[in-house]
Amino acid sequence: MTHPTILQQLNSLDADCVVWVHEARLDEGDLAQMRKVLQDGLSVPLHEMAFEGGEALKTLAQAEQLWGHWSALGVTRRSLILTQGGGALSDAVGFAASTHKRGIAVAHVPTTVLGMVDAAWGGKTGINWGHGKNQIGTFHHPAFVHIDATWLKTLPARELRAGLAEMAKHELLSPASLPIPLSEVANLNPAKHSDVWTDWLVASAKVKQSIVQSDPDDRESRQALNLGHTVGHALESWSMAQGISCLHGEAVAVGLRFALFEASHEALVLGTSEPLATMPTPPSGFQAWLKQAIPLPTELPKDGAALWPWMTQDKKNQGAAVMDLAIRPSGRGLWLGSWEKNPFKATWAEFVRSM
Amino acid sequence: MTHPTILQQLNSLDADCVVWVHEARLDEGDLAQMRKVLQDGLSVPLHEMAFEGGEALKTLAQAEQLWGHWSALGVTRRSLILTQGGGALSDAVGFAASTHKRGIAVAHVPTTVLGMVDAAWGGKTGINWGHGKNQIGTFHHPAFVHIDATWLKTLPARELRAGLAEMAKHELLSPASLPIPLSEVANLNPAKHSDVWTDWLVASAKVKQSIVQSDPDDRESRQALNLGHTVGHALESWSMAQGISCLHGEAVAVGLRFALFEASHEALVLGTSEPLATMPTPPSGFQAWLKQAIPLPTELPKDGAALWPWMTQDKKNQGAAVMDLAIRPSGRGLWLGSWEKNPFKATWAEFVRSM
Repeated sequence: MTHPTILQQLNSLDADCVVWVHEARLDEGDLAQMRKVLQDGLSVPLHEMAFEGGEALKTLAQAEQLWGHWSALGVTRRSLILTQGGGALSDAVGFAASTHKRGIAVAHVPTTVLGMVDAAWGGKTGINWGHGKNQIGTFHHPAFVHIDATWLKTLPARELRAGLAEMAKHELLSPASLPIPLSEVANLNPAKHSDVWTDWLVASAKVKQSIVQSDPDDRESRQALNLGHTVGHALESWSMAQGISCLHGEAVAVGLRFALFEASHEALVLGTSEPLATMPTPPSGFQAWLKQAIPLPTELPKDGAALWPWMTQDKKNQGAAVMDLAIRPSGRGLWLGSWEKNPFKATWAEFVRSM
Repeated sequence: MTHPTILQQLNSLDADCVVWVHEARLDEGDLAQMRKVLQDGLSVPLHEMAFEGGEALKTLAQAEQLWGHWSALGVTRRSLILTQGGGALSDAVGFAASTHKRGIAVAHVPTTVLGMVDAAWGGKTGINWGHGKNQIGTFHHPAFVHIDATWLKTLPARELRAGLAEMAKHELLSPASLPIPLSEVANLNPAKHSDVWTDWLVASAKVKQSIVQSDPDDRESRQALNLGHTVGHALESWSMAQGISCLHGEAVAVGLRFALFEASHEALVLGTSEPLATMPTPPSGFQAWLKQAIPLPTELPKDGAALWPWMTQDKKNQGAAVMDLAIRPSGRGLWLGSWEKNPFKATWAEFVRSM
C-alpha cells in the first residue's frame, strides 16, 4: 500500500508556520533526516523544540512553557503544531495546542506502537493535575496522524511487545479490517519489515478511527475501545502502588485475557438490552497467544480484592456500579455490563488458577 | 412571547448534579429567590459557589481553584456547571469547565446586556495569560443560555447604555429578526418592562446564534460579528493605556459609528470578491442615534495614528494587513477589507471632524 508522505500531509494544510515538537531521545540520525525533509519541503517557516518525553511532560507548568514559547514565536491560529514522540508528548502538547488562542491545529508523528494505533488518534488530550491522571484535558482532533513503522526501530523491545495489546484489541473488535493476522506481524522485526508493519498499523488505527468517528465525545459506542481496560487500568494502578513496573500494554493484555476468560463464564451482569457493538467470536487460542506474546513482568494478585478498589475509581463508572465490557460469543457482540465485588473475585480467582 | 423557565432548561439535561457559580455582587433577595427555585425544583444535588466578577477572575490560578473545588465535590462528566454573572465569569468558568475531565457541560444565566446578547453565546471561553487578553481559551458551547431581563435591574446605568452597542450591531446585521426598533426598547426601563426587554434580548441573541452556527470555529462568516470591533478594540486599548475609563460597549459604539461613516466614503480596500454576509442598507439617522444613546466618556483622539498601533495587533489580521469590515450600501452587503495606515488616518480625521 502507498501512504501519503509527511510533506504531502503538511502542505495540504495551508498553515502559516510549522512548530515541530519532538522527543529529545529519538535517534539523532533519524531526526537529522526528518529536519532536512521539513526544511527542504515546507513552503512556510519551521521551528523546532525538543523535550524529554514521559509523564513528567503532562503538567500545567509544561503547558505554560509551551504557551510561552509559542507566543514568543508569534504562533497564530493558522499555525500547525507537529508532535513527534510517544503518547505522553501528544497528550501534553495536544492539550497546550487546544487551549492556545482557543485552539491551534495539531498533527502527530507517533514513535511508539501505542501512539500509532491508539494515543495519537481520537483527539483526547490531557495533563495530570491534583491526584488524577488526565484530570485536565480537552477533545482536540489532530489534523492528521502520520504512521511510519521505521520510527519503531529505537523503541525498546519490551515497549514494542506491550504495544501489541492495543493492536490485539483492534483485531478482536474488527478482524476483517486487518490485512493479515496479528500473530504473523508480531513475528516480524519492524525495522526490517517496516512496510508490512506500517500497513498493519494504519489499518489498526483505522479500526479506532471509525469507532471514534461514530461517537466523537465518548458517550456511547466509543466505549467499545475500553475492552480489557477496566481490569487493565486496575492492574496498572495496583502495580504502581506495589512499586512493580508494569507497562500499560502489559496490563491491557491481561485485561483482554480476562475478558476472553469471562466470555466463556458469563459472570458480568449485562446493563443494556442491546450490544454496544457487533463483534465476531474471538478465535480459540487467542488468549494463549496473548499470554505468550506479551509476557507479564510480575505475578498477578491471586485475590481480586486487591484490584477492586482501583476498579471502583474507573472514569467509566456510573454511580456505584463498576462498569466493564463483556464479549458474548456466537456473534452476540460486545456489551456494557457491571460487576459486583463477589462475582468479580470468584471469576478472577478462577482466571488466575486457569493459567 | 413565553420562554422556557430555567428549571425546564435544567431538568431537560439529565445532569447528575448542578454547580451554581454566581457573582457575589448580585442582589441578595434575587439570589435567595433563585436558590429557592433551584433547591425546590431540581431532582439532583445543588452546589453553590460565589465569586467576585470582573477580569480578575480570568486567570489560570482561578481556573485551578475551580478545578480543585469541582474535584472535591465529585463533579463528573455528567455534571452541569451553571454560571450567573457577567461575561468575565462565563469566560473564566467556561474555560475551567471545558478543560475539567475533557469537558463538563456548562450553561449560563447572564446578568449583563453584553452577556445576554453576546458573551454568553458562541462558546468562546478565555483567560488572560502572558501579555494577552483571552490568550488561553477554548470553544465550548453552552448547553443553554437563559435570558431574563429582570436580572438587569441591578446593572449600573452606564453599563446598560454600553450594552446597547452589541444590540445595535445585531440590529444592523439583521433588523428583520427583531420585534421592534432598538431605539424604542432603549427608552424603556428594563425593570419595569422586563417582558419587552427579554423578548428583544432573546431575538438579538438569536441573530448572533444563527451566525455562530453557520461557522462554529470562527473561520469565515462569523467574522461578521466583528463589525465595529477593529476600531472599537483599538479605542478600548488606547483608552486603557491613557488611563481613561472606556467600556467595551462604549468603544464598540464608536466603532459602529465609524463603520457607518466609512460606508459612505468607501475608504477600505475590499479583500474578497464576494461579501461575507448580506445586510440591508442601514437606516439614515442610525449614526446620530448611536451617538446620543451611548455617550462616550472621553474625547476621541484627533489623529488616527494614536489608534493604529492597536489596530495592527488585532487577532483578525492576516500577515501585515489590518483587517476590518466594510458595510457597502444599497444591499451590497458586509465585506472583509483591509486598511493601509494613511487612508485610515485620513478617514478617521474626517470622521472626528464630522461629529
